[in-house]
Amino acid sequence: MSHLSTLQSSTDLLSTSTIIALTIFFSLLCACIVVGHLLEESRWANESITALLLGLGAGAVVLFLSKGNSSSILVFSENLFFLYLLPPIIFNAGFQVKKKQFFKNFTIILMFGIFGTVISFCLISFDRYLVLKLQWLTFAANTAGAFLLFKRIGVTSLNTQDYLAVGAILSATDTVCTLQVLNQDDTPFLYSVIFGEGVVNDATSIVLFNAVQSIDMDNINALISLKLLGTFLYLFFSSTFLGIAAGLLSAFIIKTLYFGRHSTDREVALMMIMAYLSYMLAELLNLSGILTVFFCGIVMSHYTWHNVTESSRTTTKHAFATMSFIAETFIFLYVGMDALDIDKWKASSASAGTFVAVSTTLFALVLVGRAAFVYPLANFNTCIRKRGSSNIEFRQQFIMWWAGLMRGAVTIALSYNQFSNSENNNTKDSALMITSTMIVVLFSTVVFGSITKPLIEAVLLRHTKPNVSDATDIPSLEELRIMFIENGEANDTGENQPAAAARRRSGLRLLLTHPTWTVHHLWRKFDDRFMRPVFGGRGFVQFVPGSPTGAADETSGT
Amino acid sequence: MSHLSTLQSSTDLLSTSTIIALTIFFSLLCACIVVGHLLEESRWANESITALLLGLGAGAVVLFLSKGNSSSILVFSENLFFLYLLPPIIFNAGFQVKKKQFFKNFTIILMFGIFGTVISFCLISFDRYLVLKLQWLTFAANTAGAFLLFKRIGVTSLNTQDYLAVGAILSATDTVCTLQVLNQDDTPFLYSVIFGEGVVNDATSIVLFNAVQSIDMDNINALISLKLLGTFLYLFFSSTFLGIAAGLLSAFIIKTLYFGRHSTDREVALMMIMAYLSYMLAELLNLSGILTVFFCGIVMSHYTWHNVTESSRTTTKHAFATMSFIAETFIFLYVGMDALDIDKWKASSASAGTFVAVSTTLFALVLVGRAAFVYPLANFNTCIRKRGSSNIEFRQQFIMWWAGLMRGAVTIALSYNQFSNSENNNTKDSALMITSTMIVVLFSTVVFGSITKPLIEAVLLRHTKPNVSDATDIPSLEELRIMFIENGEANDTGENQPAAAARRRSGLRLLLTHPTWTVHHLWRKFDDRFMRPVFGGRGFVQFVPGSPTGAADETSGT
Repeated sequence: MSHLSTLQSSTDLLSTSTIIALTIFFSLLCACIVVGHLLEESRWANESITALLLGLGAGAVVLFLSKGNSSSILVFSENLFFLYLLPPIIFNAGFQVKKKQFFKNFTIILMFGIFGTVISFCLISFDRYLVLKLQWLTFAANTAGAFLLFKRIGVTSLNTQDYLAVGAILSATDTVCTLQVLNQDDTPFLYSVIFGEGVVNDATSIVLFNAVQSIDMDNINALISLKLLGTFLYLFFSSTFLGIAAGLLSAFIIKTLYFGRHSTDREVALMMIMAYLSYMLAELLNLSGILTVFFCGIVMSHYTWHNVTESSRTTTKHAFATMSFIAETFIFLYVGMDALDIDKWKASSASAGTFVAVSTTLFALVLVGRAAFVYPLANFNTCIRKRGSSNIEFRQQFIMWWAGLMRGAVTIALSYNQFSNSENNNTKDSALMITSTMIVVLFSTVVFGSITKPLIEAVLLRHTKPNVSDATDIPSLEELRIMFIENGEANDTGENQPAAAARRRSGLRLLLTHPTWTVHHLWRKFDDRFMRPVFGGRGFVQFVPGSPTGAADETSGT
Repeated sequence: MSHLSTLQSSTDLLSTSTIIALTIFFSLLCACIVVGHLLEESRWANESITALLLGLGAGAVVLFLSKGNSSSILVFSENLFFLYLLPPIIFNAGFQVKKKQFFKNFTIILMFGIFGTVISFCLISFDRYLVLKLQWLTFAANTAGAFLLFKRIGVTSLNTQDYLAVGAILSATDTVCTLQVLNQDDTPFLYSVIFGEGVVNDATSIVLFNAVQSIDMDNINALISLKLLGTFLYLFFSSTFLGIAAGLLSAFIIKTLYFGRHSTDREVALMMIMAYLSYMLAELLNLSGILTVFFCGIVMSHYTWHNVTESSRTTTKHAFATMSFIAETFIFLYVGMDALDIDKWKASSASAGTFVAVSTTLFALVLVGRAAFVYPLANFNTCIRKRGSSNIEFRQQFIMWWAGLMRGAVTIALSYNQFSNSENNNTKDSALMITSTMIVVLFSTVVFGSITKPLIEAVLLRHTKPNVSDATDIPSLEELRIMFIENGEANDTGENQPAAAARRRSGLRLLLTHPTWTVHHLWRKFDDRFMRPVFGGRGFVQFVPGSPTGAADETSGT
């Protein structure tokens, strides 16, 4: 039978190592799903933590079986992460986000995202050599802090660019973790603010990271800082525009050709491919693919989703969620398995004390850095809004600070990019930085991730009074009545000039008192009159009860 | 602004070439879907041909833009094809196949698949050095033919192994093409036979191809031939068993844990991952992943699909079809773009005349080889069945011959594997073989693919009388009545010995007169009594109108 066995062992058209790796990964994914399901009732565990711990366990087993030589089955690949795993997660987040809630808090989200950057840039132009603050206050604190503290611990070989990179890497809040821990239905305000901040933040973080890698840090001046700000704004708006354009194009194609007549599969395939294409195009044009695919998801759920057949609706809603779920679980599994990569730990050749010291330092910087901008900005937000109802309570500020502390796969991917390709010759310190980042990610995900749910329950939900900030910006009944009457008149009379003028005047008054709500109202009118007849959407193709974002969404505005 | 532009151009966390390739591919996929939709009404075109021609066009544009240097954006990768594109297509085929029709024709399918192999093996033991026939009659004809004809054309550097490989490569009927051209509803008999043959054939082809690559061809004898036959049977049954086990496991897990209570996404994710895992496991164990994932699909649609929630049912049905659709389109696009790869054409450095001669020879061998086993086996099948109704008409034999002529991506992948890694030093002839295989694939897909639909209409569907073979094996009303009464008795009396004996005797009689139908009946009883209570399935979890294989399926047997 020896002949047979040689025949058998040679039947590999495919590389065996890839197959082994894939088999192990997919077995672990199955295990994650089943274990995650069994732990569903637990307040402390969630799917990320299960995946992370299972990944760690599997890594340990592989390490043991290979007798301490290697634990990594697949090495962490930035391509895999940024090209295949991240897009479905962010797209699904855009597709399933409660659009009304998201846009109602859009000012706060943008303030957290953009004003933070502006403040940092102003600081740079005043104080350009000593404390190089390129992003957020977090970033400044992280950078300066890292610089001062690391000198004491004895990590000396890193250059200015490396410190700036550490700041950029650690200021990226992980959207994937946030999605897993926060619940859109229980805490809609927090969910939309922290998740929205995370999306904007991701873009900012990547822009600044690239800037740090490419700019000569010794010649920084106010002009360059302003150019960086310009670049950021250009990136933000062009990425958003690209995402919206891709979404509208898909809506237009599906509405015009009316694929449903023939095939559900084609509709679903077209939606998937267009969404992915928008991400790829953004990356190709050096824009932020994350922002693009997020807005593409929003537009698709608003227009395209309503143009397809009933079965396509069910399919897309669940298929996108499933793909996102698989990608999330895969990422955490991946991070868990990669954490025990023995080569990196050996390469850093540092004592356990150094690891603990560096990791603690980094983690403390994350804590302080986030506190440094969440509390001031939240209070600033309270100041510029006059009505008492729009306050962000201290409790909520605390949760906003806490929930944004988790760091995830984006941090690890950026850290690899900086420290494994660094021109820095001292590979020991680079390896130390990668492993320390990994410790921060593991610790924040496992510890903070498991505490967050019970914490939110304890801090927010036990207070039985309705959460005030979740009711922000809803005008009084009286104003609503006026608005609805006007709305009805406008639809009936159309060209009636005095009525339109009165409406405009009244609109201006409302814009001053309830800016967000009025913008939303104006958008609804614009949407109904110009957008929906062209791109379809609810009611313009066929009425459906329920939308991917839940039945309660959108209806209150019409 | 030069500073800005350098900043912009350096913002590549990802390799730009991959992004460009992906962007072009996904744009082309979009174009394929839209063009395919617009050509829906056309009898001549289908999605494969559209994709192939679009791929060729895009390849030509890239070739023109790169000034004749290169047309390939992504080189054809066996890993990509066998690991990621093929599994969803075959799984979906198993998931959506009309199970009753498939198993009714199972004898014919197995005969085409296994008896052909047995005949070849017998021939080998008689005639072991002169004409090395390892698979099918096709294979023998191809091999011997190729050997004799190529000598004349002047291709002399290929060794015996290469000729045998050509035989194995070209005898793999392409299941993907078949799925696109034949319609399960119009011609269920032909669909199930040709597609089923393709699935079994794929396994046989890969087994024999590997055997050819590993066995020393100068020392072949009857013992080794028998061992090969044993290997094939082992592969066939263990692959099937693995697929069934994976399907049953998924059904059991979902039924026991009842995921639907919590999350549709988890159910869908588990089904996807288990299916993919079965393929990976099969490949890891050197079994035929194609057979495994096909049977996994069948079992999942029979049990697992009925255990999940209504929305999971809709989602899986359409999501699997969509993934399969995207993978198919991607493959044809890929083959189209790869066909113009200028390096291969240059490497072969042959004249146009040689290309035409070699391709024509190969194609003629495919035609003759298929004819050599379809007609004899179909007539043999008619002989062993006594009832007139089970005849395979000559018209159908013709379509069976015709529809199996298309060669596709499996052929190209195997051809690459043989001739790009060959130890054969003469790379000219290897390149010539790859390009000629490609010409055969392109020609058969475009020409035969576009003619098949009109041909089937002309030959089969215009004859208004009901297609006899599609009604094969349905017993008379009288026999049905007896069977149902017996069935009722058996359920009522249970332990009544004389009745059971009578039933057994009557069952034996039916087994002789209607073997397939009786096996199906016995299977239904076994299924209802032992399998469904454990693994769920229609009626055991919740009644649903409609199944992924159509409402008409399965119900006639109960």
